[in-house]
Amino acid sequence: MQFSSRVERLGGKGAAAWNIHFRGVAALRAGEEVILLSVGDPDFDVAPNIANALKASLDAGDTHYADIAGNPELRASVARYHESLTGQKVGPENVLIVAGAQSGMFASAQVLLGPGDAVIVPSPRYVTYEALFGAAGAEIIDVPLRPENGFHLDPADLAAALRPNARGIVLTTPNNPTGTVMRRDEVEAVAEIARRHDLWVLTDEVYARLAHEGPHISPAGLPGMAERAVTVCSLSKSHAMTGFRIGWVVGPVNFIEHLTRLVLCMVYGSPPFIQAAAIEAIEGDQSAQETMAAAYKARGRLVFERLNQSPHLKCHRPEGGMFVMVDVRPSGVSAEEFSEHLFVEEKVTALVGDAFGPEAAGHLRLSMTYDLPVLEEACRRILKVAERHGRG
Amino acid sequence: MQFSSRVERLGGKGAAAWNIHFRGVAALRAGEEVILLSVGDPDFDVAPNIANALKASLDAGDTHYADIAGNPELRASVARYHESLTGQKVGPENVLIVAGAQSGMFASAQVLLGPGDAVIVPSPRYVTYEALFGAAGAEIIDVPLRPENGFHLDPADLAAALRPNARGIVLTTPNNPTGTVMRRDEVEAVAEIARRHDLWVLTDEVYARLAHEGPHISPAGLPGMAERAVTVCSLSKSHAMTGFRIGWVVGPVNFIEHLTRLVLCMVYGSPPFIQAAAIEAIEGDQSAQETMAAAYKARGRLVFERLNQSPHLKCHRPEGGMFVMVDVRPSGVSAEEFSEHLFVEEKVTALVGDAFGPEAAGHLRLSMTYDLPVLEEACRRILKVAERHGRG
Repeated sequence: MQFSSRVERLGGKGAAAWNIHFRGVAALRAGEEVILLSVGDPDFDVAPNIANALKASLDAGDTHYADIAGNPELRASVARYHESLTGQKVGPENVLIVAGAQSGMFASAQVLLGPGDAVIVPSPRYVTYEALFGAAGAEIIDVPLRPENGFHLDPADLAAALRPNARGIVLTTPNNPTGTVMRRDEVEAVAEIARRHDLWVLTDEVYARLAHEGPHISPAGLPGMAERAVTVCSLSKSHAMTGFRIGWVVGPVNFIEHLTRLVLCMVYGSPPFIQAAAIEAIEGDQSAQETMAAAYKARGRLVFERLNQSPHLKCHRPEGGMFVMVDVRPSGVSAEEFSEHLFVEEKVTALVGDAFGPEAAGHLRLSMTYDLPVLEEACRRILKVAERHGRG
Repeated sequence: MQFSSRVERLGGKGAAAWNIHFRGVAALRAGEEVILLSVGDPDFDVAPNIANALKASLDAGDTHYADIAGNPELRASVARYHESLTGQKVGPENVLIVAGAQSGMFASAQVLLGPGDAVIVPSPRYVTYEALFGAAGAEIIDVPLRPENGFHLDPADLAAALRPNARGIVLTTPNNPTGTVMRRDEVEAVAEIARRHDLWVLTDEVYARLAHEGPHISPAGLPGMAERAVTVCSLSKSHAMTGFRIGWVVGPVNFIEHLTRLVLCMVYGSPPFIQAAAIEAIEGDQSAQETMAAAYKARGRLVFERLNQSPHLKCHRPEGGMFVMVDVRPSGVSAEEFSEHLFVEEKVTALVGDAFGPEAAGHLRLSMTYDLPVLEEACRRILKVAERHGRG
């Protein structure tokens, strides 16, 4: 039987990178003492007020179809929240509720891009981008984020990547995997290029509340960007709600209208009781969120300091998000080998940088999803591997 | 700013048909006594054991990412349930959990069909099919389901629709909007054509548990179909779980593997606590489900009998599902006019058949989503409009 040619674009390196994670999960389930630094799932539980809001909604009988674009109250909440995060003033009509940021990125790509189109994406980049833009039929033009520049964007690299078929630029800030937070000058340079060449700017801002060395700067908040900025965000990371699959897309009204028609045939709306939980997450007490943000910041600093003690490792300073990138090239061992040793000998899983793009070759991405003592132990194990196999 | 050409394929008649429904909802919210027969959202609440299973899962901390293809326990449950519904023996590896049947149809189309491909779809058909196959880039070849044949399929019509670029056939049984349940001879004829021409058969079986004049026959259960049958189903209708957005796709293992890669970049899995509710829905007490199925059957019969009392109306016998199709052509009034009169004068909303395809022109689709006394009242109002405007 035949499949669509689209399926060839759904795999790739990005998907294969997760194998080490799946091996780690299997070992953990088999009772081994594995430390999984390979996935960005918060170790925190969702705050009780959020879970209770879900239950109250369920008890109230909110178990039927919701509005396709989302509950009007949630859309209004998100509009206000988006303004607080980005500085861009929007209304509920600019907001579409989706099943998490992944779904928001996929749906946005479907509406913005088609076969023959290209999208400019700084690399290293999140592992699913290749598949989601590929599913839309679009080609990715990579722009290097250079490790020697702390993975920050050089606008000259972006300008050099322009092609006649480029329709938009994708940003991720704070970044996964690099842990950078884009500076105002970087974002302004991107916005300037987008305005000049009439490009969309699609920004994945799921770590906006985790800009440890902030501030978080969104292109959506800059002058002249309202008509071309599409912002995708969720509560997964900020509020430990990965399993709720709830997020949103904010953009121009005509874009949101197209997106709503797509979502109608793609998923037919989001569960109303999850939307009730999302309203509580945004409008309710934020102390749990603040505790988590402080924890990720402290964890990143710890790992940064510990790993940089080794002459075999060069750890990048984590500016935001929940990941730390460590360059293992000083050890003389490739990232693949290092990752394999680390899992087999020390039961720690880390994703190999190459999966995120060639600029991250020689790097490992570490998730800050354990409390400090476990991360201390993980660092000890990583340092042991560096010591054992380092050729420097 | 430019959008993908894909957006032109997301609208169409299907989407516009819902306007009468939205007007009805607005009037209802404004306090008017509207009877909404325009949407297939069960009036029943979800059974308490299912809601409780969700809460227990939430309390147990199941709020993190789930496996992309679905919880292994749920996949195993669905595999057994699928066998009980279709007769096809499958394992968990044949099952992918999705955010409802709509999502399952969309994702399947993305994997099975691309630009230049065609898919054969009996018409009248569900309103989102045009957009979801359009989003995949595929063309629909309509096969008429003739009202004079009770909207049953004539295999000769199907054979006549074959084209070299046809990749598959789409079935919906029990059908929305027509209310038919495909007979064994019809399904066997489709399977025979599919095998001979090496076509996929993608079947939307969300009403399988509502085959009032059954039995429900799935092409997946017929000989030689395992390699080409893709079955999409959900708990939305059978278990009054429309707001849970949970369903599944069952198909060959290599298809499910492709689908899993798509779902990874499209939505990144389903909420684990909703999956726990789904397990309870499938494995737990079925008495609420049986009560609902009996109610839909009784309602359909009532409406069928009442409306056929008018010389201006010809109601089709509802064989399954939760809809009744009534032909208003004997009244001499078009379905659009009848629907408009019905809403403006009598505050009853019904979808115009044309939205589902030209074969349903002159028909209205009525949802059996109220208890008998309300449906009696709705029938009185419909009969009044027929009497008032009928020219027969």
